[in-house]
Amino acid sequence: MKFPKVHTLKYIASLVDANYIGDDDFPIQGINEIHRVEAGDIVFVDHPKYYDKALESAATIILINKEVECPVGKALILSDDPFRDFVKIGQYFMPFQSANKRISDTAEIGEGTIIQPGAFIGNHVKIGKNCVIHSNASINDHTIIGDDVIIRSGTVLGADAFYYKKRETGYDRLKSVGNVIIEDRVEIGANCTIDRGVTASTIIGEGSMLDNLIQIGHDTIIGKKCLIASHTGIAGCTIVEDEVTIWGQVGIISGITIGAKAIILAQSGISKSLKGGLTYFGSPAEEMKQLYKKKAINEIMIKEYRKK
Amino acid sequence: MKFPKVHTLKYIASLVDANYIGDDDFPIQGINEIHRVEAGDIVFVDHPKYYDKALESAATIILINKEVECPVGKALILSDDPFRDFVKIGQYFMPFQSANKRISDTAEIGEGTIIQPGAFIGNHVKIGKNCVIHSNASINDHTIIGDDVIIRSGTVLGADAFYYKKRETGYDRLKSVGNVIIEDRVEIGANCTIDRGVTASTIIGEGSMLDNLIQIGHDTIIGKKCLIASHTGIAGCTIVEDEVTIWGQVGIISGITIGAKAIILAQSGISKSLKGGLTYFGSPAEEMKQLYKKKAINEIMIKEYRKK
Amino acid sequence: MKFPKVHTLKYIASLVDANYIGDDDFPIQGINEIHRVEAGDIVFVDHPKYYDKALESAATIILINKEVECPVGKALILSDDPFRDFVKIGQYFMPFQSANKRISDTAEIGEGTIIQPGAFIGNHVKIGKNCVIHSNASINDHTIIGDDVIIRSGTVLGADAFYYKKRETGYDRLKSVGNVIIEDRVEIGANCTIDRGVTASTIIGEGSMLDNLIQIGHDTIIGKKCLIASHTGIAGCTIVEDEVTIWGQVGIISGITIGAKAIILAQSGISKSLKGGLTYFGSPAEEMKQLYKKKAINEIMIKEYRKK
Repeated sequence: MKFPKVHTLKYIASLVDANYIGDDDFPIQGINEIHRVEAGDIVFVDHPKYYDKALESAATIILINKEVECPVGKALILSDDPFRDFVKIGQYFMPFQSANKRISDTAEIGEGTIIQPGAFIGNHVKIGKNCVIHSNASINDHTIIGDDVIIRSGTVLGADAFYYKKRETGYDRLKSVGNVIIEDRVEIGANCTIDRGVTASTIIGEGSMLDNLIQIGHDTIIGKKCLIASHTGIAGCTIVEDEVTIWGQVGIISGITIGAKAIILAQSGISKSLKGGLTYFGSPAEEMKQLYKKKAINEIMIKEYRKK
Repeated sequence: MKFPKVHTLKYIASLVDANYIGDDDFPIQGINEIHRVEAGDIVFVDHPKYYDKALESAATIILINKEVECPVGKALILSDDPFRDFVKIGQYFMPFQSANKRISDTAEIGEGTIIQPGAFIGNHVKIGKNCVIHSNASINDHTIIGDDVIIRSGTVLGADAFYYKKRETGYDRLKSVGNVIIEDRVEIGANCTIDRGVTASTIIGEGSMLDNLIQIGHDTIIGKKCLIASHTGIAGCTIVEDEVTIWGQVGIISGITIGAKAIILAQSGISKSLKGGLTYFGSPAEEMKQLYKKKAINEIMIKEYRKK
Repeated sequence: MKFPKVHTLKYIASLVDANYIGDDDFPIQGINEIHRVEAGDIVFVDHPKYYDKALESAATIILINKEVECPVGKALILSDDPFRDFVKIGQYFMPFQSANKRISDTAEIGEGTIIQPGAFIGNHVKIGKNCVIHSNASINDHTIIGDDVIIRSGTVLGADAFYYKKRETGYDRLKSVGNVIIEDRVEIGANCTIDRGVTASTIIGEGSMLDNLIQIGHDTIIGKKCLIASHTGIAGCTIVEDEVTIWGQVGIISGITIGAKAIILAQSGISKSLKGGLTYFGSPAEEMKQLYKKKAINEIMIKEYRKK
C-alpha cells in the first residue's frame, strides 16, 4: 500500500511512538509485506530467523524489534512489537470505513456497466466499462475491476485476508490494507470469495474464467487465461502463471508457484511449486506419468500377493 | 430452448448471414445441445470427430462448418464458426435482460410463498405455492420453482453455465439460454449454486434435499428423493438417478450417470458412471467391498515386510 | 429449546392429542435432542434400539412409540409417531416467522456495531458491541452474537439444520428450534454457513477465527481460539475443543470430538474422534508419525520390486 504522499521517517515513527535510526527526513512511501516490497516501503520483522531477509530486502525502512546495524541507504524503526505497529501504520492511512448506501458515493462505475439489485459496491471501488455485477455480489472497498468483466451472484471480492499472529491472549489479525484487482474480460462464478491483499493486491489476470464457490487467498496472483473449476481453494501469496487449468475441489497451499499451462486434476492437493506444461493428480499431487507407474506396480504387487 | 414460435430455415440462417441446405420454409423450433436435442432443434458441430453424431442425432437442423451430404428430412446451416453462430441465435431469442427491481415485474409468485428481505427474483421466474425464499438468495432469470420448496439464504439459482470454447485469443463462453427447474418439496441449503442449463434445464427432482455450499453444474439432472451433503460438487450434464445419497465434499465429473439408490461416501471422487444400489468410496472411488479387500492386502503386506 | 414458561404434562400432551403416563401437572420446560437433554426436557425416541438410552437420559419426559415402564421421577408421552409430534411441539412454541424488513424490529444491536448494506438481521437476533456485520450477510432468527465479532460478506448464520427422517413418502425435516451462538472476538470469513441447532445451540467459541466458505453443522461446538481454513466442512453434533487448528478442505463427520490443540492438515477426512495435541493427515486421517512409517515402507517395497 502506497501512502497518498511521501512522508518522513520522523513523522511515521511518531505515529507509533517509536525510536528510529536514520535521517529525520528519510522518505517513506508505503508499507508492504516481505514478498512484495519495493524501495520506499516499510517492511516488518519480529523473529531473529527472518532479520537478514528483511534487512536485505528491497524495502528501505525496516520495522524491527532489535537494534541491529542499519544497512547503508536504509532506515530502521525500533519497536517492541513490530506486528502491532505495522498494523497501526496501515490503519492510520487506510482505516475501515462503514458504508451507508448499497452503492458508495466514492465508487466509480464505467459506461455500460450493469449493477444488478442487491449488489454492494463499497468505498473507492472502480469498475470499468460493460461489466455485469450480478445480484447480491459484494464488491468491498478499494477493489479495481477492468472492462467486460462479469461477477456472478453472491460473490465476495475484497474481504479481509485470513492472516493472524498467535499471541498468548489469542489471534491478532494483520488488518488488510491491500485490495483486489480483476483484469479485463475476467468472469467469476457465483458465491466465490477473493480476499484483498494484506498490503498489496490479489490479482485475477486478463481473460481468466472462474467457476462457482472458489476461494482465492490474499495476495495471490492468477495469470491470464486460466480456467478454475468449482470448490477450488488457493491459499495466500501463491502465483498461478498464465493458461493454467485447475479442475474442481483442488487445494493449493500458500507461497508457491504453478508454472504456465500446468493442468491440475480434480481433488488434487498441491503443497509445492509445480513445473508448467505438465498434468498433476493426487493429494499430495504427483506428475501423472510418475503416478501411473507407482499405481501400476502397487496393483501388480497386490495381484502377485493374492496368487500366493 | 424453444423459440416463442416456429421459424423458417431461411429466417434463422439470415440471423447469422449463413448459407443453408434445405427448403426455405423448413421449420425450426429451438436450439439445443447434442445430449438433449429433439426434432425441430438446431444442434451445432464444429469438429469432424463429432460430425456423424450431430448428423445422426434427433436434431433436424445441423449448424456445421463443412458442406456435407444433408441427411434425409433434415437441413444444414453452413457456418465458418458454428459455436459463434449458435450463441448468436440463442442470444437473439433470449438476450440478457438487466433488472431494476429486487422482485421483477415479470416474475410469478404463488399463493402462500414468502420472499424474505434481500432475495432477488429475476425476470420470468415462476415460483409455486407455499415456498420460502430466504434472505439474500438469488433466483436468476427463467428459473421455475414448484410448490412447497425452501431455498435458504445466499443460494444462487440460474447463474450462467461454466462452458467455454478455447480460442487463440482466450475463452469464449457458450452463453446460456437454458434454465433451472426445482420440483415440488425440494429443500436447498444456504450458499449453494445451481447453474442454468446451456440450452436445456438443470433439474432438481421432487423431494430431494440439499445441504449447504453445494455446486450443481449446467444441465445436470438430480432425481427424486436424493440427499446431498455440503461442499459436494457435481459437474455439468450428469444424471443422478432417484434416491441417491451423496455425503460431504464429494466431486462428480460431467456427463456420467449415478444409478438409483447408490451411496457415495464423503470426499469421494467419481470419474465414471456408477451402478445403482451399491456404496462407493475413494478418489477415484471404488465399490466398498473391492476397496476393503485391496486395503486389507496392503496392510498385510506392510506387516509382513516389517517382520523381515 | 426452553419454553417461555413451565408447562404441564397434560397441556403438552394435549397439543399432540397424545396419551401420557405421569401426573397431569408434571412440569415440562423444553424439548431437546438426546445429546443435550436436561431435567425438565422432552426427548423423543422411535426405535427400540434407543429406548433405554432415552429412558435413562437426563430428560424427564420421554416421547415414545411404545407403552414401556415409566422410570421413577419421569413421565411418558405416548405417540404413534414421536418424530412428528416432537416437531409439532417445537413448532408450536417457535414457528417460522417471516420478516418484512432487512433489520427486524425485534433484533437488539449493541453500541458501536456496524451493519453494512444488504445484511439481513432476523427476528429476535441479539448482537453485542463493536461488531461489524458485512454486506449481504444473513443473520437468521434467534442468533446471538457477542462483542467485537466480525461477520464477513455473504455469510449465513442460523440456516435450518440438515436433519431428515426417511419415510416411504420422502424426507421429513426435523424443523429446527435451536440457534447459533457466536462468542466474543470471533471472526467469520465470507460466504460461510453455520447452521442453527436442532433444539440446542451451535456455538463458535471465543476468539476463534474462521476463513471463507466454511460449513459448520447443527449443534456443533467449536472451542475457543480455534483456527479453521477455507472450504472445511464440519458435520452436526461434533465437538472441537480449544485451540484446534484445521487447514483447508478438511471434512469432519458428525458426533465426534477433536481434542484440544490437535492440528488437522489440509484435505483430511476425519471419521472418528481424535486425541488432542497431535497432527493428523489423510482421508481417512492418521496421526502423522504412523502415516510417515506406512508411506516409507510402501515406497521401499515399490523400490525393491522395481529392482527385481
